[in-house]
Amino acid sequence: MAEQKKKQRITVSIYGQQYTVVGEEPPTYVKDVAHIVDQKMREIKKRNPYLDTTRLAVLTAVNIVDDYMKLKKENEMLNEKVNEERSTGDD
Amino acid sequence: MAEQKKKQRITVSIYGQQYTVVGEEPPTYVKDVAHIVDQKMREIKKRNPYLDTTRLAVLTAVNIVDDYMKLKKENEMLNEKVNEERSTGDD
Repeated sequence: MAEQKKKQRITVSIYGQQYTVVGEEPPTYVKDVAHIVDQKMREIKKRNPYLDTTRLAVLTAVNIVDDYMKLKKENEMLNEKVNEERSTGDD
Repeated sequence: MAEQKKKQRITVSIYGQQYTVVGEEPPTYVKDVAHIVDQKMREIKKRNPYLDTTRLAVLTAVNIVDDYMKLKKENEMLNEKVNEERSTGDD
């Protein structure tokens, strides 16, 4: 169980540029993450063709934080539900 | 309850640049989201001072997707727990 995690360098392509990511995650995971960013950038570019790449990348980050915050809220509600059902079960 | 949601234009500042976001979210929420992106960019810039702004913004998006994926996994586990406890309660 004491799995030795080794840092790896993984090169991914996002919006036509190469990025090297250093981390302990499996390459398939890092590639999935890169693919999501790439897709989001292309989606937003379609809706806003005038955006330069920097502004496009920043707005992509804004969109993802928005998704994150909504998921976090859902998560908090689920946590409450789990705790509620647990305390009901204790009666 | 049938609250009429109106699209608003909100201007935020991220990494020294102004962005206008159009949406139905309250201005405080949009400002919080922008602030998170701004902070993440500054954090990553500190660790990688050589990065240009486009690459910095893309890597910020990568980091946020990573956080999102981890939260999503947690969310799925919580959902399973809620469903499990529900089915146990039905017995």
